[in-house]
Amino acid sequence: MAGPLPDCEALDAADPLARFRDRFVLPEGVTYLDGNSLGALPRATSARLAAVVEQEWGEGLIRSWNAAGWIDAPHRVGAKIARLIGAAEDEVVVADSTSVNIYKLLCAALAADPRRTVLLTEPDNFPTDLYIAQGIAEACPGVTVRTLPRDAILDALGPSTVLLLTHVHYKSGARFDMAAVERRAAEVGAVVVWDLSHSAGGLQLDLAGDRAQLAAGCGYKYLNGGPGAPAFLYVARALQSQLISPLTGWMGHAAPFAFSDRYEPAAGLARFLCGTPPILGLAALECGVDIVLEAGIEALAHKGRALGDRFIAEVAACCPGLELASPRDATARGNHVSFRHPHGYEVAQALIARGVIGDFRDPDLVRFGFAPLYTRFADVRHAAQTLGEVLARELWREPRFAERASVT
Amino acid sequence: MAGPLPDCEALDAADPLARFRDRFVLPEGVTYLDGNSLGALPRATSARLAAVVEQEWGEGLIRSWNAAGWIDAPHRVGAKIARLIGAAEDEVVVADSTSVNIYKLLCAALAADPRRTVLLTEPDNFPTDLYIAQGIAEACPGVTVRTLPRDAILDALGPSTVLLLTHVHYKSGARFDMAAVERRAAEVGAVVVWDLSHSAGGLQLDLAGDRAQLAAGCGYKYLNGGPGAPAFLYVARALQSQLISPLTGWMGHAAPFAFSDRYEPAAGLARFLCGTPPILGLAALECGVDIVLEAGIEALAHKGRALGDRFIAEVAACCPGLELASPRDATARGNHVSFRHPHGYEVAQALIARGVIGDFRDPDLVRFGFAPLYTRFADVRHAAQTLGEVLARELWREPRFAERASVT
Repeated sequence: MAGPLPDCEALDAADPLARFRDRFVLPEGVTYLDGNSLGALPRATSARLAAVVEQEWGEGLIRSWNAAGWIDAPHRVGAKIARLIGAAEDEVVVADSTSVNIYKLLCAALAADPRRTVLLTEPDNFPTDLYIAQGIAEACPGVTVRTLPRDAILDALGPSTVLLLTHVHYKSGARFDMAAVERRAAEVGAVVVWDLSHSAGGLQLDLAGDRAQLAAGCGYKYLNGGPGAPAFLYVARALQSQLISPLTGWMGHAAPFAFSDRYEPAAGLARFLCGTPPILGLAALECGVDIVLEAGIEALAHKGRALGDRFIAEVAACCPGLELASPRDATARGNHVSFRHPHGYEVAQALIARGVIGDFRDPDLVRFGFAPLYTRFADVRHAAQTLGEVLARELWREPRFAERASVT
Repeated sequence: MAGPLPDCEALDAADPLARFRDRFVLPEGVTYLDGNSLGALPRATSARLAAVVEQEWGEGLIRSWNAAGWIDAPHRVGAKIARLIGAAEDEVVVADSTSVNIYKLLCAALAADPRRTVLLTEPDNFPTDLYIAQGIAEACPGVTVRTLPRDAILDALGPSTVLLLTHVHYKSGARFDMAAVERRAAEVGAVVVWDLSHSAGGLQLDLAGDRAQLAAGCGYKYLNGGPGAPAFLYVARALQSQLISPLTGWMGHAAPFAFSDRYEPAAGLARFLCGTPPILGLAALECGVDIVLEAGIEALAHKGRALGDRFIAEVAACCPGLELASPRDATARGNHVSFRHPHGYEVAQALIARGVIGDFRDPDLVRFGFAPLYTRFADVRHAAQTLGEVLARELWREPRFAERASVT
């Protein structure tokens, strides 16, 4: 390595995003490196939710669907997310869960072209992506799921392919080159559905520039929308009128409040809405998205790379021999970094017991997420030092750390 | 009519449920008769949501999936709803929207038996039910949607039929005899999916006793879960292991946190979960359900019938000639009552301008819902008198009442 690392406190003092940390609730004594699993609570959210509940619901009652703009919330919050991912404002809506949105997009992509019969993805993709694809193949005669290692995927694309990729891998943090994948897909007539769950709000994305056509992603990670926040869905404008959602609920109708007997899809992206929008979840998500917009995605992405780089360097110093399971090059990574350890579960638990909250991912990964809105360089150093201590003194050997909780 | 009606104030004074009204936020100067569209806000909800947000999310962060029982919430709240609809505790889960749940049940019912090819329902059913069925038929070769007037439905049932009925009609309030429908369906080998949106929390249901097999329903009407609250889904225990949800998301996996590559459905009803559960929505819904449980569904159903009967009698006195569009017999009705008027939209708006909030339903219905938890007999009389005044003096003729809002 090239000389001593710059002082973390100095980096934090010079960080233009440092002031955003106070805009979040962060418990005392905790170094939270799991914002890639559940983003921290923005301080603004409590008051906003209280207003939505007490004024809009309590006082406004049914009138708030119009008067408080509830009916527009999926589009309004979607338009804000669009600005974070390089999409036009009418290309993103908030609806349902990531799983349900991936289902909609895969089914719509299959139905739009009878040549499409293969749902291609990589093994070890995030489970819900794999499961949703498998469920569709099970239900649709002639459709199969194929998995290929990521370096074999581009060569396998063809007009029969609907490719489902998670842009930033949930374990390794490895990041696909979206532009390159879309270029190849366009050449051979394949279509790509991107899962942006570990990307949106943490990385700079340019869906329009990269010619992405279909994507979905999570509201509760880097978008800070709260546990089980509603998800988002992106369809490039040119495709919107060609695709039909399999979930033809009333909110996707051209005129939902005409209460007609016959389904007629809405003209634009609204056709990918289904049931009544979840207003409490949308309100919390909007607070989380607003703070990302205010900080600016370019600055956040820059800091995210620097935090990850610093963590890798600190771990190299504190934990000799620990194997990095993530790309060393920050431009090939998302905002989380994983290391392999044969007792990864116990190591993660020992860290949590010491206030350093990362997580474990099967079979042997200890994962650390660096949400740039509220993570300091000093946190990164502290986490690496605590990890070094846990490993050097084998503190993970305490039997209590081996007990598996239902959610890990 | 047989003599003068008993005094409304006396009825309210004698009402064993009267004390529950103070447990809700109800705005000054408003007579709210739209709890069948959006239930009022329970006072307990604000504090509970604040605790979920500030303590469980803010302080507990990712740990709350285990420590605060988030992961069990779909089952915990589902078990409470089960007690309201005559189901066993492991036969109901909370998930997604009503539209998505109806989709799951219709697809699962079709897939379970290749003889099933007809989605039968009635014209003028709630639009999302019709639209979801139409979307499935569009996507599944060989599956058709058929609509028949309700009095022709039982004779048309056969082993090819998946019957989709809304138990209480959203316009007329007319109620199906669930036991009779299920009896006929069982005789001929049909299967029924019930939409309980206008029933659950307002009527006494006995899904087990009536041998119902599949149902879904809304969380934001008589269950008071708030705007866009998550919905529920019922599958009779005997069927649970035979049905596969089309939405095979990770929360429906036998071991979601094993992160395996292969979908394997959970043993019981959990297989009908899909994405990450919406914790804020579940918390609000639980508050709304708790208060229904506390009041007792039998007493609520009894009062609901009495309120509707009283409204019909008051309107007969105040609004001579106005045509009732709902069953006069309370046992054949849900908790809302509709009247026909050629200018129904304007009449509903004129009532809202006078603080009586009901709603309009195409083409000519003015609809009034009587949520027994917080509606008084005096409210019913006041609404009827205001309606009488609006009609007698033709107050609905003001041009502003004809302007259509986006949500009506």
